[in-house]
Amino acid sequence: MSGWDPRPAIALKRSGSRVPAEDIERIVLAYARGEVADGPMAAFLMACVLRGMDAGETDAMTRAFIASGASVTLGDVGRPVVDKHSTGGVSDAVSLVFAPLVAALGLACVKVSGRALGHTGGTIDKLEAIPGFRVDLDIEQMRRQVERVGCVITSQTPELVPADGAVYALRDATGTVESVPLIAASVMAKKLAVASDVILLDVKAGSGAFMRDAAAAAQLADACLAIARAARRRAGAAITDMSQPLGTAIGNALEVAEAIEVLHGRRDGRLRDLAVWLAARALTSAVGIGPDEAAAAASSALADGSALARFAAWVEAQGGPALVIDDPAGILPRAAVRLPILAAASGFVSTVDTATVGLVAQGLGAGRAHRGDTVDPSVGIVLTAKIGELVERGEPIGTVHARDAGSAEIAGNAIAASLQVAAEPVAAPPLVYGWSEEG
Amino acid sequence: MSGWDPRPAIALKRSGSRVPAEDIERIVLAYARGEVADGPMAAFLMACVLRGMDAGETDAMTRAFIASGASVTLGDVGRPVVDKHSTGGVSDAVSLVFAPLVAALGLACVKVSGRALGHTGGTIDKLEAIPGFRVDLDIEQMRRQVERVGCVITSQTPELVPADGAVYALRDATGTVESVPLIAASVMAKKLAVASDVILLDVKAGSGAFMRDAAAAAQLADACLAIARAARRRAGAAITDMSQPLGTAIGNALEVAEAIEVLHGRRDGRLRDLAVWLAARALTSAVGIGPDEAAAAASSALADGSALARFAAWVEAQGGPALVIDDPAGILPRAAVRLPILAAASGFVSTVDTATVGLVAQGLGAGRAHRGDTVDPSVGIVLTAKIGELVERGEPIGTVHARDAGSAEIAGNAIAASLQVAAEPVAAPPLVYGWSEEG
Repeated sequence: MSGWDPRPAIALKRSGSRVPAEDIERIVLAYARGEVADGPMAAFLMACVLRGMDAGETDAMTRAFIASGASVTLGDVGRPVVDKHSTGGVSDAVSLVFAPLVAALGLACVKVSGRALGHTGGTIDKLEAIPGFRVDLDIEQMRRQVERVGCVITSQTPELVPADGAVYALRDATGTVESVPLIAASVMAKKLAVASDVILLDVKAGSGAFMRDAAAAAQLADACLAIARAARRRAGAAITDMSQPLGTAIGNALEVAEAIEVLHGRRDGRLRDLAVWLAARALTSAVGIGPDEAAAAASSALADGSALARFAAWVEAQGGPALVIDDPAGILPRAAVRLPILAAASGFVSTVDTATVGLVAQGLGAGRAHRGDTVDPSVGIVLTAKIGELVERGEPIGTVHARDAGSAEIAGNAIAASLQVAAEPVAAPPLVYGWSEEG
Repeated sequence: MSGWDPRPAIALKRSGSRVPAEDIERIVLAYARGEVADGPMAAFLMACVLRGMDAGETDAMTRAFIASGASVTLGDVGRPVVDKHSTGGVSDAVSLVFAPLVAALGLACVKVSGRALGHTGGTIDKLEAIPGFRVDLDIEQMRRQVERVGCVITSQTPELVPADGAVYALRDATGTVESVPLIAASVMAKKLAVASDVILLDVKAGSGAFMRDAAAAAQLADACLAIARAARRRAGAAITDMSQPLGTAIGNALEVAEAIEVLHGRRDGRLRDLAVWLAARALTSAVGIGPDEAAAAASSALADGSALARFAAWVEAQGGPALVIDDPAGILPRAAVRLPILAAASGFVSTVDTATVGLVAQGLGAGRAHRGDTVDPSVGIVLTAKIGELVERGEPIGTVHARDAGSAEIAGNAIAASLQVAAEPVAAPPLVYGWSEEG
């Protein structure tokens, strides 16, 4: 223990008073160094959850997370650098399309990403489904790749915001995850610690997201943008729908294959539409062209194969086979068992319990219940039915990809049960609920 | 870690929902066994502080504390057994008078007591100021002594409510002390774990108490009595004044000497009055005689020397010299330096910063800033000025008993500064604000 006593700061927050920025920085950094124990830190975090944190306090926590480690600064790479972050969803392979798409549009995408946890997927796990794909790049490798290819996605190193990692692990163990300011500080520390010209946040709302409705997601978006404002960084936040899986694939190799389909221009739908929408926003924010022109440019880069070519170059640059774009079925790992998912009832799909869909995929081996669990890249779900579509009882609505017949059957029944149908037509939810920007 | 995950229980309390009794018992007992870590327990406690606990939850926590250890059951000792507990104050030597006084009245006083911490004194430290006094009695020694002498006060053993000790240490380290239900559970677990016929609580209110006013103290008293009711135990709670030191002595040997003066019938004042008041309540609760008759009996037992004789027998039974009642100055340790405390201003004493008085005594060596600190039995303060009394600037209002002249002077100035005076007469505060009982 250091000589510093965290209890006065805890007492301030407990009583609902504002904690001075220096005390927040001190408790976070002392905790990261092991000088404040788990007990006082957990009590402080619970007091933050229940009493809230104002913008200044949230900002101080973000700065402490950043100060605890090293930053990623690539220097001038000759293009505006865009960083994109999703708060986590199901069938959310947007980054796999977005990164080569903005590279094809003359921007650079630099992204330090995480792994799957709980019901949500992780971009790093998806990329690792590609044989040979390396996610442990150092800064010099990142810089060279961005200059040459225009995009890079690599795994978070222990040097980046270590205090955030330590605090998140404690929050996970102590029931103190659910807090808009704590989530915002954790998200934004990771974004601000990486040098970029534009930060794009995709804040998910719905049954498969941490934030269950658009209003809650907007609160989180606002908190994140306030942190960006305080740090004088340009940022934009979209509130997007996660009331159903975004694409049709849930599972690492399955999502890579679906992203490749989108990059080929062969697959329409919400995954494509959101990637195009976000790429257009990136273009508008970074170089100032109008939204319609930007959207047209993004669509063209998918239609003309230039985004696909960037994807191939990107995969090759990080050690994978460029050929994966032509033969994904032959190169990506495939599960031993495939079983159709049959609709349990007839009617218009009205709701999807999307978190359950994510957890079923996790149960098949596609995700992690606990940090450190091993992920099976081959397994997962393909669920083609979308909200508003008419399904017929007993007719196929997707496919389970599993290691064995037993788990396939359990998963298929669980997925079928996660859909509710209605007798009357149901409107499809919007794709994007809102957008705001800063700087 | 056990297989049991405390996070659902934490989440319930965080959301303001009621936590089932079995979950509260489980988290407390698992924490005491080391199967729940400090972090989750501290987060749970902070959620309890901020969300509150209802009577059932408080009761469940009390029962878990008791279930974590062994109970003290003396069996039939031939008299009604009274246990008395103060929530902690300054110059609060009531137990030293009360125990032999109720023994002289035909009751038994059995008390398992604690040590000084922070600004408040501890009965065990006071008793240990008597050379040779032993406070580590086992149950058989306690039983024999109660049968023979009528009173016993011994130190809390690690076997009694160990979960309470573990949780209290965590609360102390994590800023989660301030909570009526948590305090009530901690107090009442220690009382319920000792078999007694009547539990008397002396809940202090004022500048030297944890509860700063009578209303807050009444909340704590009510919470404690609700626990007694659930456990079907007879209990009464007095709300008593701690807006100034109860007696005149603050410091271990000094307080023993003052208690002996009261037992000789030579010292009037609030310490005597409260001991008599509580002894009368004990008599009324235990054997049902009327309050006036009980008060007269208690006063007589002080006046006729029978309480003093019980004190001498008690000291001897626990290994100390009975002669201490005749020659306290010769037997009790004395500080090297004595320095008069001079009034800093003229007027009627209007307020005393009683916690500061306690902390000054602690600073001299009479108390503990941290558990495990060593206490000097000889040092302390005698402060004769009481609220409502007229003092003259520069005239003595007490004496510092210190190890050296430097600390004596600092302490004397601090005590003088802890008194405020007014030009107009000030009424003395009541001694007892309220009383309620249960069972």
